[in-house]
Amino acid sequence: MANAVVSQSGGPTGVINASLVGVIQEAAKHKEITNLYGGLHAVAGIVKEQFIDLKKISTEVLERVAGSPSSALGSSRDKPNDEYCQRILKVFEKHDIRYFFYIGGNDSANTCYIVNNMAEKAGYQLRAFHVPKTVDNDLLVTDHCPGFGTAGKFVACALMGDDLDNHALPGVKIDVIMGRHAGFLTGASMLGQQRDDDGPHLVYLPERPISMDKFLADVEKVYKKLGRCVIAASEGICDHDHVTWAEKLAEHAERDSHGNVQLSGTGALADFLAGQIRGKLKIKRVRADTFGYLQRSFAGLQSETDVKEARECGRKAVEFAMKEDNGSVAMKRTGNGAKYGVEYFRTDLGSVAEKTKSVPDAYINSEANGMTPAFAEYAKPLVGNLPQTEFLGRYPTI
Amino acid sequence: MANAVVSQSGGPTGVINASLVGVIQEAAKHKEITNLYGGLHAVAGIVKEQFIDLKKISTEVLERVAGSPSSALGSSRDKPNDEYCQRILKVFEKHDIRYFFYIGGNDSANTCYIVNNMAEKAGYQLRAFHVPKTVDNDLLVTDHCPGFGTAGKFVACALMGDDLDNHALPGVKIDVIMGRHAGFLTGASMLGQQRDDDGPHLVYLPERPISMDKFLADVEKVYKKLGRCVIAASEGICDHDHVTWAEKLAEHAERDSHGNVQLSGTGALADFLAGQIRGKLKIKRVRADTFGYLQRSFAGLQSETDVKEARECGRKAVEFAMKEDNGSVAMKRTGNGAKYGVEYFRTDLGSVAEKTKSVPDAYINSEANGMTPAFAEYAKPLVGNLPQTEFLGRYPTI
Repeated sequence: MANAVVSQSGGPTGVINASLVGVIQEAAKHKEITNLYGGLHAVAGIVKEQFIDLKKISTEVLERVAGSPSSALGSSRDKPNDEYCQRILKVFEKHDIRYFFYIGGNDSANTCYIVNNMAEKAGYQLRAFHVPKTVDNDLLVTDHCPGFGTAGKFVACALMGDDLDNHALPGVKIDVIMGRHAGFLTGASMLGQQRDDDGPHLVYLPERPISMDKFLADVEKVYKKLGRCVIAASEGICDHDHVTWAEKLAEHAERDSHGNVQLSGTGALADFLAGQIRGKLKIKRVRADTFGYLQRSFAGLQSETDVKEARECGRKAVEFAMKEDNGSVAMKRTGNGAKYGVEYFRTDLGSVAEKTKSVPDAYINSEANGMTPAFAEYAKPLVGNLPQTEFLGRYPTI
Repeated sequence: MANAVVSQSGGPTGVINASLVGVIQEAAKHKEITNLYGGLHAVAGIVKEQFIDLKKISTEVLERVAGSPSSALGSSRDKPNDEYCQRILKVFEKHDIRYFFYIGGNDSANTCYIVNNMAEKAGYQLRAFHVPKTVDNDLLVTDHCPGFGTAGKFVACALMGDDLDNHALPGVKIDVIMGRHAGFLTGASMLGQQRDDDGPHLVYLPERPISMDKFLADVEKVYKKLGRCVIAASEGICDHDHVTWAEKLAEHAERDSHGNVQLSGTGALADFLAGQIRGKLKIKRVRADTFGYLQRSFAGLQSETDVKEARECGRKAVEFAMKEDNGSVAMKRTGNGAKYGVEYFRTDLGSVAEKTKSVPDAYINSEANGMTPAFAEYAKPLVGNLPQTEFLGRYPTI
């Protein structure tokens, strides 16, 4: 009998709260867990002992939480060093916290890993479990990450609408999509394609460096053929020197505590790309949008598969913690297409911590400007059903 | 017995296709209309005689069209002058087109008006009807415009999610929303507010000039009180000299055929405002998103009220055309809240053409940085049901 804490870290997603509710509801079933505390604002709140009593939250409120985007317990961008982790452990000892459920990306897995190792060394019995979440889909071991499907659905719906908009008022349209190192979310831009000439016509991922000359040649080719061109570009796209274009633009850019340049929350990259096309290709109607935080926190839009799996990942973390000392929850795909399904399993914290997965080569076309059918097969079940659309301009004229 | 043409003009919306389908389905009931042509890309396609036969489109396809954002027949930004309108009339004569249904904003109403007057002068029997659409909600006479409710729902859901994101990772967040002269859509950003401290905390409309000093003082006040601040700003906000900030930023900005500076499709204004706050208020975490075209063309998101009314406006245009010579379809509200409803009526083309409506004074607070309850009462039925969300950080700590 001991207490447990659950917390959420890093960038919010559309289903990280479903994982939280999964933890809460499964924890309620196990008498080994006396109190379940919600640690506010991740490690930043934990070291300040900012806890709420999650057993007091009604089922009605919890169901609203599960349907809400963003992190209902708040989040933090703090990257704890050893001293910080020692403070976390002190707080755990003080409150007799023996279960630590941490929902986040690879940095969060690493925090779990460090705190767990420290507890072992100190002879303090702790069960530290990481619950995966990230819109980037870049965690190792697991087939995919909760959060990706919902963000992918937003991006796919956005591109479906934007492509129809570009059909109606032709020109070049650039959409800049989240994803610093991994291009899965940018790839999701093509999942709504229904007809041969549906956009995005060009998709650029951080995994494939591209020169400005090749980029402009690609755009010109599509524009000459179709009279329009819709481009999905990751915020993390880089030139052949592997420096991102965003970084080149941002001499005095803000860096976060992980040393990363801020890529989201600014329209600079999109405007730069639009300017290049306007100036060098002499195309007049060029527009650029940066999807920004809408992709990860839009109320009322979730992938059904994603939200179900996110909740299950939270539940499984508690289940695993009843039997095992530590770990990270992962998913294995058991079937595809109509037979899509997953199994949940425990993996070592060290196999997930601080590591990132890239989009596999088989998912990127040979020209490095689009996705393959294999990617669509992988991603479609995660994003779930997409709306069906029509454009009448493709029907024959009288 | 004669032919009819229907076309869509100006910026796409999420329900302009529902109006198109309303026209098509009502026209099928009237034997006075022999052929119903879809004029591609508005007046630009009409003068080139680019017509498709809408009677050949199956009901199944039409229902997909009605649910699709953007303009299924394509659109155009051409603003026809007298000579251009003469060419339109020539095409009408050539194809025995006696009914002209034009779905669009106040410029489209004006095109209808000019073509109608020319036909009268020439003794050519024509029935020209304008069907209202605009995400800006800025047409005169009608209580509100089809297109606004759906764009408003997108903006409201976006701000609900973004406010939760800002709760999780506090700082200042600026969201720039469409609306060159009218702030209805920016006002819709507050419709999802459920709790006292829910954002947006500041809402700026084009109707109320604001100095940079006042803007920064507003932000500082909210930030000091809440430790965070979410701002919804119209792309058309201006300083007291009535020059928009976007225009001041855009020395070499692109102008459209109406002489307007391009405001959407660039993140410059949002980045400028973020820079001012970061620099002058010394707040570190400042982010800015420009919602761009997502607001008007996002697949799979429609306001139920809006899509129903949009279709009905299309239907009514055909009904009116059976009895009257010309006009624009307008709506009158017959009840509010749970008793919300509208009646449809015909108004003169001249009363809508080229005119714009602003947000009434009663809808804007005295500080000119927020909306009143009267605005929420006006706009909520149009946007329809919004998701319910939760943030646990507001519960008491142990």
